[in-house]
Amino acid sequence: MARAAASPEDLLSGAVGGDRASLARVLSLVERGGGPARAVARAVAGALDGRGERAYTVGITGSPGAGKSTLTSALIDVVRARGERVAVLAVDPSSPFTGGAILGDRVRMGDHALDDAVFVRSMATRGHLGGLAVAAPEAVRVLGSAGFHWVLVETVGVGQVEVEVAGQTDTTVVVVNPGWGDAVQAAKAGLTEIADVFVVNKADRPGAAEAEADLRRVLELSGAAGSWRPPILRTTATRGEGVAGVWEAVRRHRDEQAASGGLDERRRRRAADEITRLVGARLLERSGAITAGDRAAELAAAVARGDTDPWTAADELLAAAAPDP
Amino acid sequence: MARAAASPEDLLSGAVGGDRASLARVLSLVERGGGPARAVARAVAGALDGRGERAYTVGITGSPGAGKSTLTSALIDVVRARGERVAVLAVDPSSPFTGGAILGDRVRMGDHALDDAVFVRSMATRGHLGGLAVAAPEAVRVLGSAGFHWVLVETVGVGQVEVEVAGQTDTTVVVVNPGWGDAVQAAKAGLTEIADVFVVNKADRPGAAEAEADLRRVLELSGAAGSWRPPILRTTATRGEGVAGVWEAVRRHRDEQAASGGLDERRRRRAADEITRLVGARLLERSGAITAGDRAAELAAAVARGDTDPWTAADELLAAAAPDP
Repeated sequence: MARAAASPEDLLSGAVGGDRASLARVLSLVERGGGPARAVARAVAGALDGRGERAYTVGITGSPGAGKSTLTSALIDVVRARGERVAVLAVDPSSPFTGGAILGDRVRMGDHALDDAVFVRSMATRGHLGGLAVAAPEAVRVLGSAGFHWVLVETVGVGQVEVEVAGQTDTTVVVVNPGWGDAVQAAKAGLTEIADVFVVNKADRPGAAEAEADLRRVLELSGAAGSWRPPILRTTATRGEGVAGVWEAVRRHRDEQAASGGLDERRRRRAADEITRLVGARLLERSGAITAGDRAAELAAAVARGDTDPWTAADELLAAAAPDP
Repeated sequence: MARAAASPEDLLSGAVGGDRASLARVLSLVERGGGPARAVARAVAGALDGRGERAYTVGITGSPGAGKSTLTSALIDVVRARGERVAVLAVDPSSPFTGGAILGDRVRMGDHALDDAVFVRSMATRGHLGGLAVAAPEAVRVLGSAGFHWVLVETVGVGQVEVEVAGQTDTTVVVVNPGWGDAVQAAKAGLTEIADVFVVNKADRPGAAEAEADLRRVLELSGAAGSWRPPILRTTATRGEGVAGVWEAVRRHRDEQAASGGLDERRRRRAADEITRLVGARLLERSGAITAGDRAAELAAAVARGDTDPWTAADELLAAAAPDP
């Protein structure tokens, strides 16, 4: 007998009730986007309403090989030792050339596979507009409604999108290593702008003090705004050393933001970005229809011949579809 | 006395006349996008019209460290030995974590720095929608109008965008190396779909024959459509070995496509993609205005509180801005 497909709403109810398989399926819907993702979003807003069941998000980003995944796994241990529930959203790379690191990371996360208070999920970029940037915050809301009040957003990849997603969190942890001007790289990449907490991981290697001093200089030069000054912590995540201190810093940052009202402001700004992305995505959907007709094919041929330029062609199609309001 | 700023049209005239500084400035306008890029596009279409001054583009892509830049430099030597002019468009990574490879690549290209018949240009992704995917084809048209009838589009980065841009060329060369399942990686990354010519570079290392055999199997399994079967060539680009053969294969692919009409079809399809991207970009510009008002700020606060979902908020703003046609 065929089983009736569960609706997004039913799946969410299951997830809220603690069913992990339902939770996984809801997150797949969110990842895929479109109508079902939308239905999930509406249901989540209904579930959240008034109950305040939302996750506090901690982004973990940094250069490849910095030990982000090991630190994430060690942070899970710290959170679990406090008796709290935690989810990990691992943002996968968009690069087609990834080696074997991801599998290894996931296997390591397997230490927590039998723990019902831990949920680990990878999300891949889909290449389509706003894909991950739209899906990740929704996934966080889903996890919050399912009772995971801490969500660690770990970037596996090194692309701009992954870094952006990690920066779109309540507290952003940037991981660097001792050696070869990592601090300077971080500064160039704009990571000092998004960092709320700095971690010098692999601190048992030579150069940890120098890396910390470099970072401190970069921070002084950048002249951090606001009252929070990003602390710089040293860890050896493979042995769990210093990891409790990182979590302490995250909690202090949370408390400071909650007291100052900065957290609400930050979340409003993120919500505004999210809406803007969705507006853009909806407009782009319309562009598919606009560029599908016979005239569009003629214009493409004209551009290919060099008879006209693509901007002029685009404008003609836009004007034909709907005049500017 | 202040010098009047040259118009995009004047700069293009200079570039067409052989002035390299003007050419560089035109390409900067194209890279930056917006109104000036548009003026360049219109002027280029005017310059191209009827004169057929367009470049044949050769994409060069593959995994990091495969030797793409060395192969590109060696191909320049081959083209120059034939007395032809050639430009290189090096598509830079979008990753903020790039090491020192780019500088090294550019220095190597410096072998050709004094040759007026060679022009090398890096283009960076700007992160904004369609940035590089829109700018690269326009840059190719500019280079063609400036008399560079061969343009090698080399990807420096490993992101999806860079691979896409390299695939959006008249002939796409995919570079792999002997060892550790590179052929399988290439297949997984969809590179076998875009490859017109395969190169096993660093063929002096062990495993070159196996890499070639692996690739052949992947190609057989994928069942290439059309009459062209991608050849697999071995090179040791650092010593120039096998590079002339790669160029022969590129020229054969060009001749075959020109004879079959496949080239025109390919270029029409690319022009259609380009128009679609620009339509999308123009629609996104409108989204900025849509999400700027007081009501947008209220909706962001409501989403942040969990009172509504971002899709519903986006729809309300879209409906207020302009009803669906």
